[in-house]
Amino acid sequence: MNFIIKSNFITSESKNSLKTYENHYLVCENGVISGVFRALPEQYKNLDIIDYKDKIIISGMTDLHIHAPQYAFRGLGMDLELIDWLNTYTFPEESKYNDLEYAEKAYNSFVKALKNSSSTRACIFATVHNDATAMLMDMLDKSGLITLVGKVNMNRNCPESLCEKDTYIDNTKSWLESVSGLKNCKPILTPRFTPSCTDYLMQILGEIRNNLPVQTHLSENLSEIEWVKSLCPEAENYADTYYRANLMGNNSIFAHCVYCTPKEIELLKQTKSYIAHCPQSNMNLASGIAPVRYYLDNDLNIGLGTDIAGGANISMFRAITDAIGMSKLYMRLIDESAKPLSFAEGFYLATVGSGSFFGKVGKLEKGYAFDALVLDDSELDNINKLKLTDRLERISYYLEDRAIYAKYVNGIKI
Amino acid sequence: MNFIIKSNFITSESKNSLKTYENHYLVCENGVISGVFRALPEQYKNLDIIDYKDKIIISGMTDLHIHAPQYAFRGLGMDLELIDWLNTYTFPEESKYNDLEYAEKAYNSFVKALKNSSSTRACIFATVHNDATAMLMDMLDKSGLITLVGKVNMNRNCPESLCEKDTYIDNTKSWLESVSGLKNCKPILTPRFTPSCTDYLMQILGEIRNNLPVQTHLSENLSEIEWVKSLCPEAENYADTYYRANLMGNNSIFAHCVYCTPKEIELLKQTKSYIAHCPQSNMNLASGIAPVRYYLDNDLNIGLGTDIAGGANISMFRAITDAIGMSKLYMRLIDESAKPLSFAEGFYLATVGSGSFFGKVGKLEKGYAFDALVLDDSELDNINKLKLTDRLERISYYLEDRAIYAKYVNGIKI
Repeated sequence: MNFIIKSNFITSESKNSLKTYENHYLVCENGVISGVFRALPEQYKNLDIIDYKDKIIISGMTDLHIHAPQYAFRGLGMDLELIDWLNTYTFPEESKYNDLEYAEKAYNSFVKALKNSSSTRACIFATVHNDATAMLMDMLDKSGLITLVGKVNMNRNCPESLCEKDTYIDNTKSWLESVSGLKNCKPILTPRFTPSCTDYLMQILGEIRNNLPVQTHLSENLSEIEWVKSLCPEAENYADTYYRANLMGNNSIFAHCVYCTPKEIELLKQTKSYIAHCPQSNMNLASGIAPVRYYLDNDLNIGLGTDIAGGANISMFRAITDAIGMSKLYMRLIDESAKPLSFAEGFYLATVGSGSFFGKVGKLEKGYAFDALVLDDSELDNINKLKLTDRLERISYYLEDRAIYAKYVNGIKI
Repeated sequence: MNFIIKSNFITSESKNSLKTYENHYLVCENGVISGVFRALPEQYKNLDIIDYKDKIIISGMTDLHIHAPQYAFRGLGMDLELIDWLNTYTFPEESKYNDLEYAEKAYNSFVKALKNSSSTRACIFATVHNDATAMLMDMLDKSGLITLVGKVNMNRNCPESLCEKDTYIDNTKSWLESVSGLKNCKPILTPRFTPSCTDYLMQILGEIRNNLPVQTHLSENLSEIEWVKSLCPEAENYADTYYRANLMGNNSIFAHCVYCTPKEIELLKQTKSYIAHCPQSNMNLASGIAPVRYYLDNDLNIGLGTDIAGGANISMFRAITDAIGMSKLYMRLIDESAKPLSFAEGFYLATVGSGSFFGKVGKLEKGYAFDALVLDDSELDNINKLKLTDRLERISYYLEDRAIYAKYVNGIKI
């Protein structure tokens, strides 16, 4: 369980700076980092050393927002905006997960992909189906990845096959019970989003919450926002539909937050809620561009999500470069004063920004969980000698997950 | 030289529709397609059949805008806008191509990458250096790809090491002479862009042009456009700085065209000049978003470019999905009436749109050059049975160039 890794390390140091350790020793004890050292301290001399030589080791990344059942149609049906996209592609696909045979095939494929991806942790939407969700959680638990999975709740504005009507309380309770024995995969309450959840459903979830984490969507698309206004005329704003049900807080994730008003942003900040920024999805579904510079500079909790299948790619490297690219268009087209994200900031969002939802996760630093990716960029015939951070930037833009040579979660190689 | 390929074929049928041929026969004679048939006509019964079974064959794609010497720093230095980016990263790198040993190493790497990419044809910027450019052209000629390569001209606002001063006429003539014997790789006149080319330089190029193709940049970035105004106060607009030197026409390519005025658009259309739309570069350098929907609907000649290293990726599949994504943000953020590109339209741009610059190139149809990519998507465990066009869309978003199994140019497997 305790070991030493020798190699090159890159970690987020602060929100906008990277720290590199060339040819150093990282000591891992019981899944936690004891330190990164230039010369190995005497006390560790007896531990085994794994030498990854000229590879690069970075912290594992956390995908704050991904839909497992949508993996089966990733990269398809990119021609609609959110609400039509949900009705045309998403809901019919999610309905299939009532069939456990289908669910097994599809979830196997998803879990394999996630295991091979740059994510070491993830917050995952399943479907409304208890059995398929429990099956997914079982698979994920065995994968070694650390995950939070939500059986989705929805009881309005959705097809019959996905509508929980009066069953959502019992369903949710029995699902929570059925998955209570897992180690790496834990439940997260998942009201899909206000348009498909009645006030009463949300209120009940808030009541049975008992400190369970929560994930949902907020302010992704203009028609969605208008719809919420008409569905909940008495709510102060979209965020308030969650807040008044006791669903905000520092263990709640709100995906997107593209058009949040100043009041909603204040609510997110006050409650220390997490924002899952999903740049590729926001482009693919023509949602818009979230004000990430503002969120970052004003110390809101924010990380990145791939949002499969709104996003077509499962790679968190791609999420980083998409976030940077979108922030440039935000500056050019929306607010010239909003400085684009630097590479260090994009990397921060994917590692510490997202990872902190799970505690001390996302840095290669004493006391942090040893979640790591060992990256091999030898297939790039780099003509010029590159700094470690340049090699990482090039991997992020060019090789993405193909650079992954090995992966550790909580100190265990998976 | 004459053969038959049996497989599934997808081709652009019109600007906004794809045509599929399931399990058909494509006959290639002397590099040109004789037809695609459900049942093989009697007259071809003696030709060899290559059976690619359940793979997918599409037309090869043409990269209308790429900088060979910038491949060595792709995916790096993504933190600046155009002019600062040129001065900080690009010009110092391009200066190295005075050293033939460096050029050989770097261009070898580039040619290998291009050969393995989804491009079967490309229009390429080299540097100002005659010898290195001739070397690059020699390598490309041997690669089997069909390419146009430009020795760059620049004589102002650039570092000493890249500035041609009074030598550009002789340099250009002797370069043209030195590369006249090549078969697959031909020269294209390449004044870098107005800021680095005096009126007189452009005028001379126009005079020695003699129907040679031309490539340059137009209206990429706001500061660049302002700069051109101050450099050429007597020009009607940026496009006019090329037009009045006789550098526009249906064998001229103008990269970017992000902010063209109605008058410039009219000039592009009238002269049948080509626009190379480079979506990823326009994002990475925070340039903006080109009005592709307008260009396409108004029948301007337009294709796609990767613009390495403004773009970090050499894949034309990525250029397609980036173009689609950017068109969605254009609709959302700039002009709500501009319908986003469909997948068929993105595919059209990369195949027929770009390819037509080379003649009958970009379709799998009788009389077209047989440029093709054989795509293998078997690594995708597609849970649901997919239509051929869905498989192609998923390859474009997910596998990109990794799906390439074989590549044909002018009927020759390379």
